[in-house]
Amino acid sequence: MKENIKPATGHLGVLVVGMGGAVATTLITGTLAARKGLTKAIGSITQLAKISVKSGEEKAIKELVPLADLHDIVFGGWDIFPDNAYEAAKVAEVLKEKDLDGVKDELERILPMPAAFDHNWAKRLNGTHIKQAATRWELMEQLREDIRAFKQANGCDRAVVLWAASTEIYIPLSAEHQSLAALEKAMKENNTTAVSPSMCYAYAALQEGCPFVMGAPNLCVDTPAMWELSKQTGVPISGKDFKSGQTLMKTVLAPMFKTRMLGVSGWFSTNILGNRDGEVLDDPDNFKTKEVSKLSVIDNIFEPEKYPDLYKDVYHKVRINYYPPRKDNKEAWDNIDLFGWMGYPMEIKVNFLCRDSILAAPIALDLVLFSDLALRAGMSGIQTWLSFFCKSPMHDFDHQPVHDLFTQWRMVKQTIRELAGEEAPSYLD
Amino acid sequence: MKENIKPATGHLGVLVVGMGGAVATTLITGTLAARKGLTKAIGSITQLAKISVKSGEEKAIKELVPLADLHDIVFGGWDIFPDNAYEAAKVAEVLKEKDLDGVKDELERILPMPAAFDHNWAKRLNGTHIKQAATRWELMEQLREDIRAFKQANGCDRAVVLWAASTEIYIPLSAEHQSLAALEKAMKENNTTAVSPSMCYAYAALQEGCPFVMGAPNLCVDTPAMWELSKQTGVPISGKDFKSGQTLMKTVLAPMFKTRMLGVSGWFSTNILGNRDGEVLDDPDNFKTKEVSKLSVIDNIFEPEKYPDLYKDVYHKVRINYYPPRKDNKEAWDNIDLFGWMGYPMEIKVNFLCRDSILAAPIALDLVLFSDLALRAGMSGIQTWLSFFCKSPMHDFDHQPVHDLFTQWRMVKQTIRELAGEEAPSYLD
Amino acid sequence: MKENIKPATGHLGVLVVGMGGAVATTLITGTLAARKGLTKAIGSITQLAKISVKSGEEKAIKELVPLADLHDIVFGGWDIFPDNAYEAAKVAEVLKEKDLDGVKDELERILPMPAAFDHNWAKRLNGTHIKQAATRWELMEQLREDIRAFKQANGCDRAVVLWAASTEIYIPLSAEHQSLAALEKAMKENNTTAVSPSMCYAYAALQEGCPFVMGAPNLCVDTPAMWELSKQTGVPISGKDFKSGQTLMKTVLAPMFKTRMLGVSGWFSTNILGNRDGEVLDDPDNFKTKEVSKLSVIDNIFEPEKYPDLYKDVYHKVRINYYPPRKDNKEAWDNIDLFGWMGYPMEIKVNFLCRDSILAAPIALDLVLFSDLALRAGMSGIQTWLSFFCKSPMHDFDHQPVHDLFTQWRMVKQTIRELAGEEAPSYLD
Amino acid sequence: MKENIKPATGHLGVLVVGMGGAVATTLITGTLAARKGLTKAIGSITQLAKISVKSGEEKAIKELVPLADLHDIVFGGWDIFPDNAYEAAKVAEVLKEKDLDGVKDELERILPMPAAFDHNWAKRLNGTHIKQAATRWELMEQLREDIRAFKQANGCDRAVVLWAASTEIYIPLSAEHQSLAALEKAMKENNTTAVSPSMCYAYAALQEGCPFVMGAPNLCVDTPAMWELSKQTGVPISGKDFKSGQTLMKTVLAPMFKTRMLGVSGWFSTNILGNRDGEVLDDPDNFKTKEVSKLSVIDNIFEPEKYPDLYKDVYHKVRINYYPPRKDNKEAWDNIDLFGWMGYPMEIKVNFLCRDSILAAPIALDLVLFSDLALRAGMSGIQTWLSFFCKSPMHDFDHQPVHDLFTQWRMVKQTIRELAGEEAPSYLD
Repeated sequence: MKENIKPATGHLGVLVVGMGGAVATTLITGTLAARKGLTKAIGSITQLAKISVKSGEEKAIKELVPLADLHDIVFGGWDIFPDNAYEAAKVAEVLKEKDLDGVKDELERILPMPAAFDHNWAKRLNGTHIKQAATRWELMEQLREDIRAFKQANGCDRAVVLWAASTEIYIPLSAEHQSLAALEKAMKENNTTAVSPSMCYAYAALQEGCPFVMGAPNLCVDTPAMWELSKQTGVPISGKDFKSGQTLMKTVLAPMFKTRMLGVSGWFSTNILGNRDGEVLDDPDNFKTKEVSKLSVIDNIFEPEKYPDLYKDVYHKVRINYYPPRKDNKEAWDNIDLFGWMGYPMEIKVNFLCRDSILAAPIALDLVLFSDLALRAGMSGIQTWLSFFCKSPMHDFDHQPVHDLFTQWRMVKQTIRELAGEEAPSYLD
Repeated sequence: MKENIKPATGHLGVLVVGMGGAVATTLITGTLAARKGLTKAIGSITQLAKISVKSGEEKAIKELVPLADLHDIVFGGWDIFPDNAYEAAKVAEVLKEKDLDGVKDELERILPMPAAFDHNWAKRLNGTHIKQAATRWELMEQLREDIRAFKQANGCDRAVVLWAASTEIYIPLSAEHQSLAALEKAMKENNTTAVSPSMCYAYAALQEGCPFVMGAPNLCVDTPAMWELSKQTGVPISGKDFKSGQTLMKTVLAPMFKTRMLGVSGWFSTNILGNRDGEVLDDPDNFKTKEVSKLSVIDNIFEPEKYPDLYKDVYHKVRINYYPPRKDNKEAWDNIDLFGWMGYPMEIKVNFLCRDSILAAPIALDLVLFSDLALRAGMSGIQTWLSFFCKSPMHDFDHQPVHDLFTQWRMVKQTIRELAGEEAPSYLD
Repeated sequence: MKENIKPATGHLGVLVVGMGGAVATTLITGTLAARKGLTKAIGSITQLAKISVKSGEEKAIKELVPLADLHDIVFGGWDIFPDNAYEAAKVAEVLKEKDLDGVKDELERILPMPAAFDHNWAKRLNGTHIKQAATRWELMEQLREDIRAFKQANGCDRAVVLWAASTEIYIPLSAEHQSLAALEKAMKENNTTAVSPSMCYAYAALQEGCPFVMGAPNLCVDTPAMWELSKQTGVPISGKDFKSGQTLMKTVLAPMFKTRMLGVSGWFSTNILGNRDGEVLDDPDNFKTKEVSKLSVIDNIFEPEKYPDLYKDVYHKVRINYYPPRKDNKEAWDNIDLFGWMGYPMEIKVNFLCRDSILAAPIALDLVLFSDLALRAGMSGIQTWLSFFCKSPMHDFDHQPVHDLFTQWRMVKQTIRELAGEEAPSYLD
Repeated sequence: MKENIKPATGHLGVLVVGMGGAVATTLITGTLAARKGLTKAIGSITQLAKISVKSGEEKAIKELVPLADLHDIVFGGWDIFPDNAYEAAKVAEVLKEKDLDGVKDELERILPMPAAFDHNWAKRLNGTHIKQAATRWELMEQLREDIRAFKQANGCDRAVVLWAASTEIYIPLSAEHQSLAALEKAMKENNTTAVSPSMCYAYAALQEGCPFVMGAPNLCVDTPAMWELSKQTGVPISGKDFKSGQTLMKTVLAPMFKTRMLGVSGWFSTNILGNRDGEVLDDPDNFKTKEVSKLSVIDNIFEPEKYPDLYKDVYHKVRINYYPPRKDNKEAWDNIDLFGWMGYPMEIKVNFLCRDSILAAPIALDLVLFSDLALRAGMSGIQTWLSFFCKSPMHDFDHQPVHDLFTQWRMVKQTIRELAGEEAPSYLD
């Protein structure tokens, strides 16, 4: 099967929406540092993980399938502030200056293009480096032009567009999103309440043949209109919402309770976060989008309809609190109320002192590299096998998402093995 | 394949070593209450879990394989105190009086036989209800006689012997344990430093055709001598050490870090526990046995030899502190030092307010029922597929244990499906 | 000085607003049980604390000043549900049934009078046992009549009215509250947005010569109008908001940081709570009242204007989350971001698994008994010395509240000593 | 009274035992940085705290009493490794390199003298920069010579000797410590089991007229022999054991429970620590010394003999675990089992992510400066008023220590006011 995958030759453009944000600058710095040998790509599946094959041997993923080499990546993107990647990374305060300094020259040369931005979709943000356009359609055309220009200027054969910007306000799926024709009409009519800026990026990417990765929980590419476009253009789409911290824990703990047939009566999750993301989510309209993404996980795993004695009344609550003293060093606290034998109650408290962008950056890198692989392998539409990286895995109306992390990981392994013409050595792998 | 399994007809004796202890009385009370419809058997796989089959349907395990019915169980056992199960349960202070009262009459009728006990193997315990015997061999013969008498008195066709007593002191594997002949010689010569009381129970059980379950980390049945005996008699053995709390969490979190290629620099685990078990473990010699059981888990999962950048220097420490105010309500606190992208450190703290016996009781029940199933299915020797329930899964010298909870769960499901002549509907199940 | 205090002879009525709520039924049950010798009055200063006197000896407060005896208390009150105290206590699920049963007969005889209630002030509550009245003035007159009738029926010489009901919605101090005349006018004009139900209770109590204790953060008695009335009638008032859990911790930890000159950059406090109180506070208008009460504490202690290098930018956030699985067993989690030598950051996390009513009940008892003492000692108006028990100590416009718990405790001790004609043995006591 | 205090003119030598350790290098770096204006002396009472005076005004301590100016301090000391302060600080890994660099030149000029060391008193340490001496007496004489030489070389009029080295092994008070004569005899007879190295430092300091500060829990200066010497030479002594983290919390929380008459059934304290101190305390003999220091606190505060219903059965356990991944970033975890009204149990968990040396450094500075003040004010012997800074406040056989932090703070304030001829404006201050 492997012979059908096009080789990963030439430069790969990685165009990041929110290029100056915490996640993007951390991704860029770490990737540049890793390819210079200054650090290992800790947390990255594509760079470090091994998969067992028929013979029982474990092979690096890179050995099994043709992934773009880190040296072939060229970073670019858009941001609402004009700072170069070095300046932006210093503002983000995720990485220590001495870590930035190792790749300072390269970072300084990475400059954002003006962003497609609409204040109504992220009221806490006030950017200065913003495109003007009469309609959403025109805005999208400017983005297509940006992509083409970037590819040409940097000699890139291929590019991936990665959304690493903030969460937009919540909107329900509406008529404008139900077909490609309806979406295009709305864009041309400049329907600014149904068409978000992120949809313009996604549409532009797909039309330019670039895989699109949605790192936030925005509706964006998760609509019939976009599924249609991605099928039509043969381009992969993936997302939504990097599964980096608290939800990562949930998709491991919830399967544990279920496997052990332990009941759950409540799950309270709170977060404190002080970066730009935290500020945006302090607006209830934006938080709504994130909340929907975070809440769905548990019910899907517990299947209360099958196990009513254990899970029919799980009270699940998620809070995110903007708390500037912490900056990017997000802290999550979960309290889980369990019950066991004879209904006796127990409690688990998990306190996760994590770093938002440190966890998200390798996920972003993996989604980019796997999306590029999928494009070369001819896999268009929703990349279900990348659910592993997402809080809110995209799925069409005929399917259910898979949330259990270890089941998701089996999907990644199986897909890689199939692309490689390989098999698992046993049902346990 | 199913036709080869003998049916689960007639009474099943469940003979518990440590019949008056917290785990045993909780197991007995809950089982009696569940079969009277007073409670659900929360936490029990055999009673509640479902497994998907070829057709995609999910079936209860009881539907797939012939398990003994709870109504057919007759409880008995040995203890170093003469209290009946009701009195002992009140002393244990695990269950509320109103929960005991629902099955008070039945509990009061369950009386322990005098225990095979040696103070040198558990110095913190001072029992009064103890067998006298000139040699270990004679002690074992008294236990065989007990088993036979119990089966006859209670009309039991089959019986399982379950160790739910305390952790014995640590001893290394020595020459006396290397063959059945050597063990028998040591028992006859009354070698009380090489032959523990628990070995007498195990030997007696196997000779009487009763599966033996080791719920503590004692060496006991985990020796070439006992493997030989269990093969020779065609009887299943399983253990060691119920995986109930902190280690259960570890075998879920460690796989998560590994799957996500997150590095770990340290893992500190401490426990406070105030029951009889905690008191026994306050003796360094007994703690040693438990410590060895608890420490092995992480390295096995992380495979530092394959992933040295992530796991070569994991500093792992486990503490158990006797703390009477808590009684059976064990509390575990884990601190995990992680590192991610560019080596940046993060921390996870898990605080588990659990209940030792509430978590252990359904595990004990499942091990008993599955051991009885294995016996009827002709599966002798180490029951590797029951690793799911054990902190320290037994394995011979040619195999490695599996610690990852979800891999262990696949082993359970696969074994059940094979016994049922079934298949998984997809590689994901 | 002691001779001026009237003796505590005869019955003392304790009329609780919210008589069927968790705090009230816990207070009543524990008081009845303590006077029957079934329990100790743990947590109660009046019953257990000792104060050193000039001679160096430590004496029980009861020995120093004439407090009403628990045997002389007669409980009554109002509630929006008609359940007697036994039924209500079972609904509240704070105390175990066996603890209620010790005083069941007495509890069953305690019945609430219909409450003065206005749904607009607590939208989450829907009562059925409610007074009808054309105006706030008329409502208040019904309450006066209730008090008189209760005293007569129960042979009470004196009575205290205690608010142990829910938090009302937030209202600012307005013209209607600035003088007694203005308040009375508003009551007569039935100004239902300026005059809360709790104000009717307070006004009625003061006119009847009964001390009034405000256990919630309601504006109620904390207005110039009420201060005027309490001075005019010679009746003590105290409050607001029982200092029971998280704020109790704050008023101990904040002084510690200050005393040690450790800086603070942020303080995040969250709570989960599943009782009726939690439900009421789930409404943002009601939460506002509580939030104002909880937020003021820290700034007052830190004095950022005097110590700007340490405290000028403390980011303080308080959250309360309704979480039914926990019922009355409130859980608080505080994260404090500190900094020390050379500005290096540190963190303290406090997880308080408390019980709302168990902590509040002895505070309520102490405020009742001390208020009655103050009345007999001729101390009218705001009882500043009772700040010790309150999250939001009342104070007039010329004074600052004292929040530091240990300073508050000195105020209690000093007041008691003065009433007793005693002195401290040293400046350290 | 102020006129009797000698002025703080000329240089003050600060001779630190353990000059290259984490606490010492953090103290030195921060002091140098603060006097250059690079940082504030956060956590230091002498530099930042204010005390109210009669007039109600709050004055800085420096305004009230003549303290040595930071600019007049000259640092020196002894260490078992020859590294200069800059190199040693880098090894300690407490401070970031950029913070060291601000005072690099000064740090590099601070070199340790060879240490008086005995491997038997700290078996985990292996130093290379060590004095040779035939007897303890000779060792002490070498130290006296060091002090004289340092003072002369650096033009210091006065010097303070500060023990910031590790905890020595536990020894009980024995005959050798009961009088100065007995101690001197033991030193001359080279009794190396009764006379610790730290005693040689203390003896040398006192004979040279230098106040001695004991920052560890070593017996050292806390003996009748040393009290005698300090009285005889008119030199202040203070200690023992910096109260920096967990015990600081205890001496605030325990008074809170007591003030509120809340009962306590258990208190479990554990610590993880990875610095040199942690390594030394990993030896049970050394831990014993620390344990004794940490355990005494609670009983002293609770006075179980006066409040048996609340505190007669407090189960108190303290653990310190060496855990290298954390280095100096100590983490403490406390679990407190409380009970309140009607005996209902509650729990408080405190997780303190602190930094050992960041907390200890300002305490060390304050003890040095206050000891120097005491010397100039003619206050010899045990400085009880400095209990505020100590886990194990020294006291003679006729007195009890005071552990409550806020009472200790009153003692500091009162002493300063008396030295300044001032009074408190009210009993509340």
